[in-house]
Amino acid sequence: MDHPINPRLRPADALRTPRFSGVRTFMRLPHLESARGVDLAIVGVPFDTGASFRVGARFGPAAIRAASVLLKPYAFEQGVDIFSRRGAADLGDVAVVPGYIEESFGRITEGLSAVLNEGAVPFVLGGDHSILLPELRAVARRHGPVGLLQFDSHTDTWDEFFGQKYNHGTVVRRAIEEELIRPDRSIQVGIRGSLYAPADVDDARALGLDVAPMMDARRLGLPALGRRIRDRLSDGPAFLSFDIDFIDPAYAPGTGTPQVGGPASWEALALLQECSGLRFVACDVVEVIPAYDPSEITALAAAQVVHECLALVAGRAPENNVK
Amino acid sequence: MDHPINPRLRPADALRTPRFSGVRTFMRLPHLESARGVDLAIVGVPFDTGASFRVGARFGPAAIRAASVLLKPYAFEQGVDIFSRRGAADLGDVAVVPGYIEESFGRITEGLSAVLNEGAVPFVLGGDHSILLPELRAVARRHGPVGLLQFDSHTDTWDEFFGQKYNHGTVVRRAIEEELIRPDRSIQVGIRGSLYAPADVDDARALGLDVAPMMDARRLGLPALGRRIRDRLSDGPAFLSFDIDFIDPAYAPGTGTPQVGGPASWEALALLQECSGLRFVACDVVEVIPAYDPSEITALAAAQVVHECLALVAGRAPENNVK
Amino acid sequence: MDHPINPRLRPADALRTPRFSGVRTFMRLPHLESARGVDLAIVGVPFDTGASFRVGARFGPAAIRAASVLLKPYAFEQGVDIFSRRGAADLGDVAVVPGYIEESFGRITEGLSAVLNEGAVPFVLGGDHSILLPELRAVARRHGPVGLLQFDSHTDTWDEFFGQKYNHGTVVRRAIEEELIRPDRSIQVGIRGSLYAPADVDDARALGLDVAPMMDARRLGLPALGRRIRDRLSDGPAFLSFDIDFIDPAYAPGTGTPQVGGPASWEALALLQECSGLRFVACDVVEVIPAYDPSEITALAAAQVVHECLALVAGRAPENNVK
Amino acid sequence: MDHPINPRLRPADALRTPRFSGVRTFMRLPHLESARGVDLAIVGVPFDTGASFRVGARFGPAAIRAASVLLKPYAFEQGVDIFSRRGAADLGDVAVVPGYIEESFGRITEGLSAVLNEGAVPFVLGGDHSILLPELRAVARRHGPVGLLQFDSHTDTWDEFFGQKYNHGTVVRRAIEEELIRPDRSIQVGIRGSLYAPADVDDARALGLDVAPMMDARRLGLPALGRRIRDRLSDGPAFLSFDIDFIDPAYAPGTGTPQVGGPASWEALALLQECSGLRFVACDVVEVIPAYDPSEITALAAAQVVHECLALVAGRAPENNVK
Amino acid sequence: MDHPINPRLRPADALRTPRFSGVRTFMRLPHLESARGVDLAIVGVPFDTGASFRVGARFGPAAIRAASVLLKPYAFEQGVDIFSRRGAADLGDVAVVPGYIEESFGRITEGLSAVLNEGAVPFVLGGDHSILLPELRAVARRHGPVGLLQFDSHTDTWDEFFGQKYNHGTVVRRAIEEELIRPDRSIQVGIRGSLYAPADVDDARALGLDVAPMMDARRLGLPALGRRIRDRLSDGPAFLSFDIDFIDPAYAPGTGTPQVGGPASWEALALLQECSGLRFVACDVVEVIPAYDPSEITALAAAQVVHECLALVAGRAPENNVK
Amino acid sequence: MDHPINPRLRPADALRTPRFSGVRTFMRLPHLESARGVDLAIVGVPFDTGASFRVGARFGPAAIRAASVLLKPYAFEQGVDIFSRRGAADLGDVAVVPGYIEESFGRITEGLSAVLNEGAVPFVLGGDHSILLPELRAVARRHGPVGLLQFDSHTDTWDEFFGQKYNHGTVVRRAIEEELIRPDRSIQVGIRGSLYAPADVDDARALGLDVAPMMDARRLGLPALGRRIRDRLSDGPAFLSFDIDFIDPAYAPGTGTPQVGGPASWEALALLQECSGLRFVACDVVEVIPAYDPSEITALAAAQVVHECLALVAGRAPENNVK
Repeated sequence: MDHPINPRLRPADALRTPRFSGVRTFMRLPHLESARGVDLAIVGVPFDTGASFRVGARFGPAAIRAASVLLKPYAFEQGVDIFSRRGAADLGDVAVVPGYIEESFGRITEGLSAVLNEGAVPFVLGGDHSILLPELRAVARRHGPVGLLQFDSHTDTWDEFFGQKYNHGTVVRRAIEEELIRPDRSIQVGIRGSLYAPADVDDARALGLDVAPMMDARRLGLPALGRRIRDRLSDGPAFLSFDIDFIDPAYAPGTGTPQVGGPASWEALALLQECSGLRFVACDVVEVIPAYDPSEITALAAAQVVHECLALVAGRAPENNVK
Repeated sequence: MDHPINPRLRPADALRTPRFSGVRTFMRLPHLESARGVDLAIVGVPFDTGASFRVGARFGPAAIRAASVLLKPYAFEQGVDIFSRRGAADLGDVAVVPGYIEESFGRITEGLSAVLNEGAVPFVLGGDHSILLPELRAVARRHGPVGLLQFDSHTDTWDEFFGQKYNHGTVVRRAIEEELIRPDRSIQVGIRGSLYAPADVDDARALGLDVAPMMDARRLGLPALGRRIRDRLSDGPAFLSFDIDFIDPAYAPGTGTPQVGGPASWEALALLQECSGLRFVACDVVEVIPAYDPSEITALAAAQVVHECLALVAGRAPENNVK
Repeated sequence: MDHPINPRLRPADALRTPRFSGVRTFMRLPHLESARGVDLAIVGVPFDTGASFRVGARFGPAAIRAASVLLKPYAFEQGVDIFSRRGAADLGDVAVVPGYIEESFGRITEGLSAVLNEGAVPFVLGGDHSILLPELRAVARRHGPVGLLQFDSHTDTWDEFFGQKYNHGTVVRRAIEEELIRPDRSIQVGIRGSLYAPADVDDARALGLDVAPMMDARRLGLPALGRRIRDRLSDGPAFLSFDIDFIDPAYAPGTGTPQVGGPASWEALALLQECSGLRFVACDVVEVIPAYDPSEITALAAAQVVHECLALVAGRAPENNVK
Repeated sequence: MDHPINPRLRPADALRTPRFSGVRTFMRLPHLESARGVDLAIVGVPFDTGASFRVGARFGPAAIRAASVLLKPYAFEQGVDIFSRRGAADLGDVAVVPGYIEESFGRITEGLSAVLNEGAVPFVLGGDHSILLPELRAVARRHGPVGLLQFDSHTDTWDEFFGQKYNHGTVVRRAIEEELIRPDRSIQVGIRGSLYAPADVDDARALGLDVAPMMDARRLGLPALGRRIRDRLSDGPAFLSFDIDFIDPAYAPGTGTPQVGGPASWEALALLQECSGLRFVACDVVEVIPAYDPSEITALAAAQVVHECLALVAGRAPENNVK
Repeated sequence: MDHPINPRLRPADALRTPRFSGVRTFMRLPHLESARGVDLAIVGVPFDTGASFRVGARFGPAAIRAASVLLKPYAFEQGVDIFSRRGAADLGDVAVVPGYIEESFGRITEGLSAVLNEGAVPFVLGGDHSILLPELRAVARRHGPVGLLQFDSHTDTWDEFFGQKYNHGTVVRRAIEEELIRPDRSIQVGIRGSLYAPADVDDARALGLDVAPMMDARRLGLPALGRRIRDRLSDGPAFLSFDIDFIDPAYAPGTGTPQVGGPASWEALALLQECSGLRFVACDVVEVIPAYDPSEITALAAAQVVHECLALVAGRAPENNVK
Repeated sequence: MDHPINPRLRPADALRTPRFSGVRTFMRLPHLESARGVDLAIVGVPFDTGASFRVGARFGPAAIRAASVLLKPYAFEQGVDIFSRRGAADLGDVAVVPGYIEESFGRITEGLSAVLNEGAVPFVLGGDHSILLPELRAVARRHGPVGLLQFDSHTDTWDEFFGQKYNHGTVVRRAIEEELIRPDRSIQVGIRGSLYAPADVDDARALGLDVAPMMDARRLGLPALGRRIRDRLSDGPAFLSFDIDFIDPAYAPGTGTPQVGGPASWEALALLQECSGLRFVACDVVEVIPAYDPSEITALAAAQVVHECLALVAGRAPENNVK
């Protein structure tokens, strides 16, 4: 990045106006219509028609924005002062079509392509995990097939549900079929609990993905797992997809298909911090459903995840940067 | 009805086993796979892909069943001992396809046709209001175009949303276009609050419907409004569709598009009691979303509405009866 | 009452210390161990083993006390400045035995007898409605059989549940059998909804009770209903028992067997105000379950009901007074 | 108003983009920094340091905005198409200083003066009721002393709490002392329940206010009460202040000092509709506390109240208009 | 087990019908009236009269069933495909008598004896922990005294509460007195926090039990603790009793006497997985109270515990099996 | 301590009266007006005007008291039978002035000075963290500058917010400026997440404090961190301040500025247990906001923290004791 940072493209100063005041954009960033001149672009995708169990992630972007006003600009554990390094803005939401998967996928891909074409890195607030497919279509259009780093308690590689091809449980298989991701540079972390059959994991591996179930992740420990991720992703462009159900339901109850037995939030954040140096060209946090989040801790955790992702992208050494 | 009542087709006796025990069928009725020999058939339709705002009515049938265990067999205000007059069962749920409107509509119509073909009256637990269309397709297939008595705070007669024809706000217009209902024998009660434009109501009237907005309903009073409904519906077969958002959000917070300013529950029940003698061939209660119903009063109100509908159908004089 | 009012027997002054401060006694009244010198005695009875459906009224007294700190000393609609006329205190809770009905009933009767023997009027915070029986045993021991004014959506006159004689649905029948109340001076107001059979109401009437179902109450209107109550209760000593499920679940969701179709809180309060002049020797408010009361409105309504009862007793002309 | 309406100054079209999408401004109106060219200006005042019991109204503006996305542009009962008559925008929040009353009052007065000086009518989203004082300071600076129409369950005319002059219970007395309102053109509607003493109401009357307690309001009925309000307010400039605790806690649980026994939402709305023709130069809705509003009905009711106020102002005949 | 598996005795296929549809049996298993031909029998025991603090576990079975629909048939960490190895069904609930401990204990023992006599392993959904006594009576009748593996934050070995012998805190002492368990083959894991006195643990040890307080468990680590459990339980028939308050309240808030400082869910599940090979003839999960579980994570954790238990029993090598 | 223990200064016996009964004092201790003769004094400080984000800690003391009734007298992990060693009482709340910081600070300092002057150790139930300043003023007046052991996710060492000097984010800097604490004997544990800038931590260190961020604490492990705390605090008088947001939001959602990534409750408790032997002359637990604590686990955790603190003080060897 060689352009100077626009001083307006940072959060409102919480030492001057209270965090609880003002219209809720992410971190009280400026609300812009286009990504022109923006490095880090927050984009909401309030789509949840792809959900197979609990539904309501359409309110996820609003909830994450509301929680994000608690965040401050400096990522302490990563040591990155995000907005002194990159300009950021909240671009609002893609106008999806509730109840209509194909139409919505089209709009999501177009919306993100516009962001990517400006050279910005989109940070998507979902939405259910089915949006990963149109996200990847936009990303691959710009960057070619990318590596996928997926934190999730499910593989999302089923072939179909109820005879249908598109929903939040089939999306990774579709992405591979469409050659949007490179399985050899992709890894799924966190799978656990009850499966339909061993094939759930075996199939993901047969598709070429590296799968690190939760029990393996625990056995490895955070540093070794971090190494495995970095080795797998390597230098190429990558997509970081964080399904909030990766985290244990105690930490993230407000989600669509909660799975007991996940990591604590701090473990998830530490794992993200291990990803320092990787080259993420887009990120998402999905499956936050505020209607099941009475104390708002899920939205808060999701906002913190976005914050870590912002720091990961902002903190890369300039010569390796996205653009 | 000339067949003897099957003594098994009634709720479990709450003086012998506690209401809080056992698998939750509606009122702890027997759970059957087919409507054969059943007069009153409870059917869940857990479909909510047609919702334009809050979503989650897929859990409506389960919530209404859970609340219904508090109900007892005798409808006090109507003076009808339901299950000594008619045999009833809970047939479980239609297997819808979440995220896919057309496929689901097909399954709903088939599921209800099977019930209707056995001569039973279906009492549908929704689901969002979009299911009215496949319900009416099944009913019209059996009975021809029917009168529609719709309690609702919205007319649901828009032409399209986001360029799409099918969702919970367009369903009545679609039903008229498909000649499933007879507008001249149909009435909508409860419209209120904010509209897109006067056309919202004018268009419904132009389609031939009688529209009784909430402010008119209050001016008329319950007895006169009851008379207007009975006159409008007349003797023919009719469908009673009860959108729980007809009731004020204080009484029914757990719904998709709550509208302030509605009637109290007791007024809604009294209005149902005014419908005694009408010939309902199917009923539904829709738009219950338990995720927004922390104290469960919405599900309880919906269960009571179903109870009144059961009594309306069971209480008709034999010679006028459905079959 | 001819004794001077002890100036300590009144609530803490909310213009000097904030209502939200201090240990939660009812209205921040002094907490005493005995009723000696006290005219109006708040007594908690945290017993809920008699409940047939939802349970947890053992936390009712604490919740009503917590809500009561919002109450101020002057009952506006009745025009009664309660604590300038009578001294009041909170005596804490009777030590019941959870899970054991008979043992608890014994303790409740003893606890209330001690209060009554000091000449105080007990205002009982329940607990489930089964406590009415030991309450009446204590009251009848002191005053002989009394009139019963029962606000309730159920008659509580069943003979037994699951083969057992004592629970919150049989308590009025037991009280009549034990000659604790005078049916000819008793009335039940608010019955509605679904019953087991017409006998539910017919039996109550056969026991000699006057039953005013909700639909009759609405037809009569508040003034005529008030007259009917006053005529029925007449001059003798009376017990006022207020089951919070008398009020509609929208106003009182936090209760054990909620029944849709009840009055608004203001109607219930107005009805209490109609009872001015009657000679209540004890009152209770029962069936508040805070676990089902997320916004605390049920506890608040119950506290207000107690306030009206305090004013009813404090406001009687001295010459007619209890003592 | 003689200027043409700016077509951008209206809500986003919910038939084209879903209501649940986008950053939450009121009704998804455009978010502007200044009131220049705006007729109807939404302004949040997230101040709650003046609250004497429950606190958290600082989150009121965000909650009302979130609920308001359900509102549509046409006020059905008033027959007013708001945004075809007036241009509107959301100006965000005044930057208050939590914990500091005087400093915040200064900022609120300055913030609203800027709005009023542009000729716009401010619709304030509170905040606790203490903000009425700085609001009235701004309004009186522009319009001179105004009439006050206050819907509230409390008079807010105490002299001090805990030895302090400024909080949400003393604000109307302060406003009279500062000659910001004309008591002879002011009326308070809804007082009820428990008071400290009869003086609570008597003092308000002695200050020159007309006080219509809830019991009188019920006795009068809506049309007569409407007439009394219109007569009292007369033709001059007026401030409409709506404390959400005017409405019964069943309809508005999420508030700071809930008072049982209030009107239903529909009655409150009907009363607002009776105020058609009055000349309101500013309006507020205060005391919404989302932390006590688990099903969000309080925020929804507040949003609907703002909608009625918008229609009242937009619907006045041009020749009588504000400017 | 030498009989072929009945293909109907498995969950409904979630790839064909959505999990959220249908009447809630455990994992959508078939609902049968008798255990004939069933290997793994789900049985609800909705009894909570034995609870000493929070109450409402009578709704535990329904909540666990509702959450269980998210479970899939293959236990990933144990590597067991449950229903290809054993036939399972949900037998509904035992008809207890709320408020009556002895009567209910009799019914529970009879109900479970009928299951055990068919050769099935019961998996009991509680209910408060007092049900352990009638469970063990049934088990001992069939298998003689058994080993007890108890996960719990309390020892439940007090002698009496409030002068009474039977409640959820005395049940293990009673079981030893009645010679239903073999203390030398029994172990309690998880005791922590505040006690009445050191005697709480010393007495349990004096009764012959092995007690592994939480602090010891942490010191040992999971593998060593697993070894200690397996050594203690050895080869004989054993009962696995899982009080959900074993888990920390962050993971299981919805319980009767929550105790801060417990393990994460994943640690509890890992500990269960360590029990592979043991010979459990019955299991229970108790003390789930949905009224204190707003985000439903407690019920979900409990369902997952049942799933692990099902896999433990189904996964044993045939020659060691129960029958 | 050489005086005999007053046998009344201990909790009510939960084996004789149920924990859920009686007025809620902390652990059902006696409620006294003065600390005379009391060793361990519970004092509520319901002040929350210093909060910068969520507010409502004024209800913290009541919530902690309500949860504390579950606690028993023996601290198992510390091996301390608290009330056989020290007499304890609940002194109720300091009468603060909501909305007025200076006036409230004065009252808090006076209230605690009275407690300290009786030789008692105060255990303060907050309240937001701004109360630390008046607490320390009282403590320093009695003991001179003290060591501060602060568990917190924030340093609270900012200079001002919104141009103001006093709120819950500036309090530690103020305490150092006023020489109430000795930075060289003080340590802050738990800082994490997002900061305004590196200066947030650097400044705290420049003020002389030892700061152990959460990431360092994890690296050290509990025993080494315990050693560092003990070394830092050394022998002198110390104040233990526990901001509940030290714990992760999964364990303590009900707080004002929750910060993802904290320790589990058990880790926090273990750390407190590491502090055995230190000489605490006062303790507090602050920032519990029950309105954000729907399942009450935050209040429960806070009560457990107070319990550990009581055991720390009661468990010191007599010769080292406070007096």
